Amino acid sequence: MKPATLDHEMTRELLRMGRPDRVLRLIGKSHPADIALLFKDLEANEVRLLFDILFSVRRAAKVLKELPADLLPDILSLIDDEKLARMMVWADPDDEVTFIDSLPEERRERILALMDPDRRERVEELISYPEGAVGRLMTTDYLALLPNTSAQGAIDKIRERGELETFFYLYVVNDAGALIGVVPIRNLVVAPPHRTLSEMMITDPIRADVSMDQEEAARLVSKYELLALPIVEQAGRLVGIITMDDVIDIINKESTEDMYRMAGLEEEDRVFTPVTRSIRMRLPWTLLNLMTATLAASVVSWFEGTIDEVVALVTFMPIVAGVGGNGATQTATVIIRAIALGELEFSSAWKAVFKQVCVNVCIALAAGTVIAFAAFLWKGNPFLGVVLALAMIINLGLVAGLSGALIPLVLKSLRFDPAMGSGIIVTGLTDAFGFLSFLGLATLFLSYLS
Amino acid sequence: MKPATLDHEMTRELLRMGRPDRVLRLIGKSHPADIALLFKDLEANEVRLLFDILFSVRRAAKVLKELPADLLPDILSLIDDEKLARMMVWADPDDEVTFIDSLPEERRERILALMDPDRRERVEELISYPEGAVGRLMTTDYLALLPNTSAQGAIDKIRERGELETFFYLYVVNDAGALIGVVPIRNLVVAPPHRTLSEMMITDPIRADVSMDQEEAARLVSKYELLALPIVEQAGRLVGIITMDDVIDIINKESTEDMYRMAGLEEEDRVFTPVTRSIRMRLPWTLLNLMTATLAASVVSWFEGTIDEVVALVTFMPIVAGVGGNGATQTATVIIRAIALGELEFSSAWKAVFKQVCVNVCIALAAGTVIAFAAFLWKGNPFLGVVLALAMIINLGLVAGLSGALIPLVLKSLRFDPAMGSGIIVTGLTDAFGFLSFLGLATLFLSYLS
Repeated sequence: MKPATLDHEMTRELLRMGRPDRVLRLIGKSHPADIALLFKDLEANEVRLLFDILFSVRRAAKVLKELPADLLPDILSLIDDEKLARMMVWADPDDEVTFIDSLPEERRERILALMDPDRRERVEELISYPEGAVGRLMTTDYLALLPNTSAQGAIDKIRERGELETFFYLYVVNDAGALIGVVPIRNLVVAPPHRTLSEMMITDPIRADVSMDQEEAARLVSKYELLALPIVEQAGRLVGIITMDDVIDIINKESTEDMYRMAGLEEEDRVFTPVTRSIRMRLPWTLLNLMTATLAASVVSWFEGTIDEVVALVTFMPIVAGVGGNGATQTATVIIRAIALGELEFSSAWKAVFKQVCVNVCIALAAGTVIAFAAFLWKGNPFLGVVLALAMIINLGLVAGLSGALIPLVLKSLRFDPAMGSGIIVTGLTDAFGFLSFLGLATLFLSYLS
Repeated sequence: MKPATLDHEMTRELLRMGRPDRVLRLIGKSHPADIALLFKDLEANEVRLLFDILFSVRRAAKVLKELPADLLPDILSLIDDEKLARMMVWADPDDEVTFIDSLPEERRERILALMDPDRRERVEELISYPEGAVGRLMTTDYLALLPNTSAQGAIDKIRERGELETFFYLYVVNDAGALIGVVPIRNLVVAPPHRTLSEMMITDPIRADVSMDQEEAARLVSKYELLALPIVEQAGRLVGIITMDDVIDIINKESTEDMYRMAGLEEEDRVFTPVTRSIRMRLPWTLLNLMTATLAASVVSWFEGTIDEVVALVTFMPIVAGVGGNGATQTATVIIRAIALGELEFSSAWKAVFKQVCVNVCIALAAGTVIAFAAFLWKGNPFLGVVLALAMIINLGLVAGLSGALIPLVLKSLRFDPAMGSGIIVTGLTDAFGFLSFLGLATLFLSYLS
């Protein structure tokens, strides 16, 4: 079980030499997650050869499901329809959905048509759930038994069923298929053979509806330290389970999404995504950024007259804007992370906003004092320092504090992602208000500055 | 098991009315994670009352361990030494470490002195591991048996042992205590009573050394879809296990850390951290930011003469800097996230850097063209557009692409956190180079601009 490190170059050479037997021996003891990493370094024809080898020993599905989401479509595009459909037979139900989801629309239909009707129906049901819903991720691979089953009867069922992907809980359902209890496997192990499941089950277990948001389900699992979450539809009918590996994937995906959204990035824009695809995804955000920067610049243009009189102002302008931008990003980060971890509810939001503004105003007082002294020492004009300090308090204290805290909360209340472009928006605002407050105050006190 | 929502206001009222019986009835069916949330809304004397009630029914440790890390020290400071030491008796070993870790140095000694010698020794061993090592997080609550134990013998042991915090695997150790195998509990359930553990165990299981970095251990668990990771010390002696709830905590903590570090925030600076503590933690970062901003500003001061001649330049200056800053943040985010998720090794780092520079240069070409046209339409001078576009290519393309990709990688290779202040550093650089490239080019082409 301890994974052997795979020699990627040697595997490639054996593939090119046409030695499937030796490739198999090489990868034989490797974990599917390690074999999947091989695909990253292979050329198209080598991908096909390796797939055929894995396919011949029925390990193809187990390996491909480990591929990062940005690589899977490219790899699947190299495999012909019939093999792909046959591979599905060996895939777990939730992985089937992942594969089908990664195919272009028209190919999806072709592959589904090649699958046997039962499996097709099951996959079609799962992909009918909206993106982001737990129904989309769940596996239908679980064991549900009636409450009058004995411990021994349950053990026999487990034996019959053979390998289950994951197995920590037995689910107990009534005649209508509604979830009524759960038996941790530990309890089953130590139970006398004739005790029934209804005597040892935990009643009314934590569950999620098929339409529940994946992020919310992940929070449920981590808050209550569950190992699997049963998924039910109307009338409480048990239809699937979400397992820990799904939960970890969700948590990682949501964190990536938050960091990405703040910077104005699409989730699929990963480190090895092809250049052209990255450019296509980043361009709209850059244009938005260009717009917010131009807005800030137009504020500067109002004050060209002032700058014409005291050109030294231009040196200090970026300080007020830059420090404000970072303060706003800090505040937005704290708020976005608290929302993501479920630490901040709307009821206490005003407290959070107030606190952030307090923190920012105090920091602005300190930073303003420092920069005022520095400016005085540098340019020898005490009024320049006062203008700088005041602008810092307005921009870093009020604008950064308020916009950093409010924008994620407003986005959330409008049912957008709270992180969505927030970095670009708050830095745009603090640039504009930084210039406005500094150059505006400088214009007011112009006679003292020149 | 399905959690009831707790009425915080009613609980407070019952606490103040001195009705512990009714408080107990109210919180009786609640999950510890939900009861812990109560503490957020309580005054100091109410905290003490609630603690006493939980203490009396031996639920205090189970509830307090669910508190967010930023609240725990404040709550513990309200509880007297003796009660705290007695509460430890009911805590899981890994939670004991969490509690002790949250105490101020001198109180830690006092509490340890009040504990019985066995427990004290165990806790002292765990807290001797360096911060961030898995040894610090592991629980010593697991079942390890000898290889010749029969399935029935193992089941008897489980029964004897009573409740274990988590239980998915039986560990098999040799006479010296070295880990030699693992038996998933499912296999135990279906095994004939006389089969020995050595006949059904998975040999040479994935394990981690006590000193392994927590983040690395979490990646191991999620990559290989384990439910618990055995922790060994020299000679492979099994000393503990890491469970899924730890792994989820690690993953959430590391994501918070990355987002925070980018913006220049300390991990303990959470949404409801007291204002004064937040200020203390944010101030050093703000001063660093003030320094980088001042550096960028001093670049501007070199060109005051140029600006004096063509004051319109000052309007476009922030656009080159701002768009560059965002481009660098995007690039740094992609790289930092790839490092965190283990998708990027040093061997392929140059490929990643090259890709990011390509993407940035292409985006800079597009953004430069747009802004060149806009500037021409606005100010009627085609040379201004050319200077802007060239500056954009230098700053957004080369400086942002290179610094965004290289800085996290360099920090990582120096064994710092790759996210450490990277937001502040890259925006400082793109500000400085944005001004330098734009104003520098403008000075060169000054005769065409005025």
